[in-house]
Amino acid sequence: MIDVRELKDADVVVAFVEYAILVVVKMMLMSVTTAFFRIKKKAFANPEDVATVGKGEGAKKYLRTDPDVERVRRIHLNDLENIIPFLLVGFFYSFSGVSRSTALWHYRIFVVSRVFHTFAYLIPLPQPCRGLSWFIGYMVTFSMIGQLGLVYYRMP
Amino acid sequence: MIDVRELKDADVVVAFVEYAILVVVKMMLMSVTTAFFRIKKKAFANPEDVATVGKGEGAKKYLRTDPDVERVRRIHLNDLENIIPFLLVGFFYSFSGVSRSTALWHYRIFVVSRVFHTFAYLIPLPQPCRGLSWFIGYMVTFSMIGQLGLVYYRMP
Amino acid sequence: MIDVRELKDADVVVAFVEYAILVVVKMMLMSVTTAFFRIKKKAFANPEDVATVGKGEGAKKYLRTDPDVERVRRIHLNDLENIIPFLLVGFFYSFSGVSRSTALWHYRIFVVSRVFHTFAYLIPLPQPCRGLSWFIGYMVTFSMIGQLGLVYYRMP
Repeated sequence: MIDVRELKDADVVVAFVEYAILVVVKMMLMSVTTAFFRIKKKAFANPEDVATVGKGEGAKKYLRTDPDVERVRRIHLNDLENIIPFLLVGFFYSFSGVSRSTALWHYRIFVVSRVFHTFAYLIPLPQPCRGLSWFIGYMVTFSMIGQLGLVYYRMP
Repeated sequence: MIDVRELKDADVVVAFVEYAILVVVKMMLMSVTTAFFRIKKKAFANPEDVATVGKGEGAKKYLRTDPDVERVRRIHLNDLENIIPFLLVGFFYSFSGVSRSTALWHYRIFVVSRVFHTFAYLIPLPQPCRGLSWFIGYMVTFSMIGQLGLVYYRMP
Repeated sequence: MIDVRELKDADVVVAFVEYAILVVVKMMLMSVTTAFFRIKKKAFANPEDVATVGKGEGAKKYLRTDPDVERVRRIHLNDLENIIPFLLVGFFYSFSGVSRSTALWHYRIFVVSRVFHTFAYLIPLPQPCRGLSWFIGYMVTFSMIGQLGLVYYRMP
């Protein structure tokens, strides 16, 4: 029987899993952040959720959109749009025979750029803070794609 | 040549693929559910879609949002936010050397919690039905993350 | 040590990675397309973004939704809903022992259907152009799911 940990690139793959978990946890925390802001700002999307705040006709006013809630929801969607491609590409990348230090720097910069992006979006910091942190993460994924292209397209 | 099925954790991986397929199909069915409600409620997002219902100025009134359509779209987005992290984490988890029965219970509880979540959101059932089913699935993913952390971070 | 490229289905997996990269790049380009339309149509979601266009009270009018921007955002969300399931299912499919040519046709048709879908949505082409291209991609994923089911559920 073959153990996954005997794979040639196993140490890079393990490093990838560590960073992947970090960034997945960061993305998943947006769910509770949205819930927190919905309760704090009393802005709900569903009539059955409003029932937890109040009853009767007076509760209907909490069925509304709120700028802060929408902001958190945009962060979450931006995470889905950027973190999931990173995870899919980064997984293949970890098997591509790349050196451990090159891979680690890609993973580290991406995780830091996304954590900074979240705070830049949430506070919010003046532009181009958020735009730049988004762009750095975007470029990390494209850098991995470029290296993957060189490795895979050359194969027989 | 190495066959994937000779991998050490192959039976857990195969079980993961089965449950992953189930929950991906569940998620993909939200697309046709949205289409169904858009046609049923005559609420479309694009002018070119309205042309399938009627022509001329009178058709413009179908270019609108509808509470039921928006509800289905929120289920779909909630699936993306929760099912994709489960699939990425669960994949690594299936290779972590976890026992088959522990892994299976994680996969089963997650799938059941997400199917229940969909019906609780769609009908809708009174809260905390939907909130609780969301939380159970969320906790399953975090339980896998916790176990993965113990396995991977201890490795040399 | 085991090299991933010695895996039994390695050539199908490598082909999958190539097509996966293509379709991930296509999906990621929607981010810059959204940014392009936001700047072109001067329609921003955040007050801190508006500051890049103008200052003071007059800039507030750019804090608005625009049909073209919303259209691009719907394409991006549709990509997330369809391309990510394809990538997850297609990955398992590439290890299922399927013949290289069958796998390649699934990957090719999917990529072409999604590229066509994007242009059909963006221009926009009259229906059922977009609906049909969406349906073809959807069916490719389900075809892979069907074949995976036959392979995996039969295993001991």
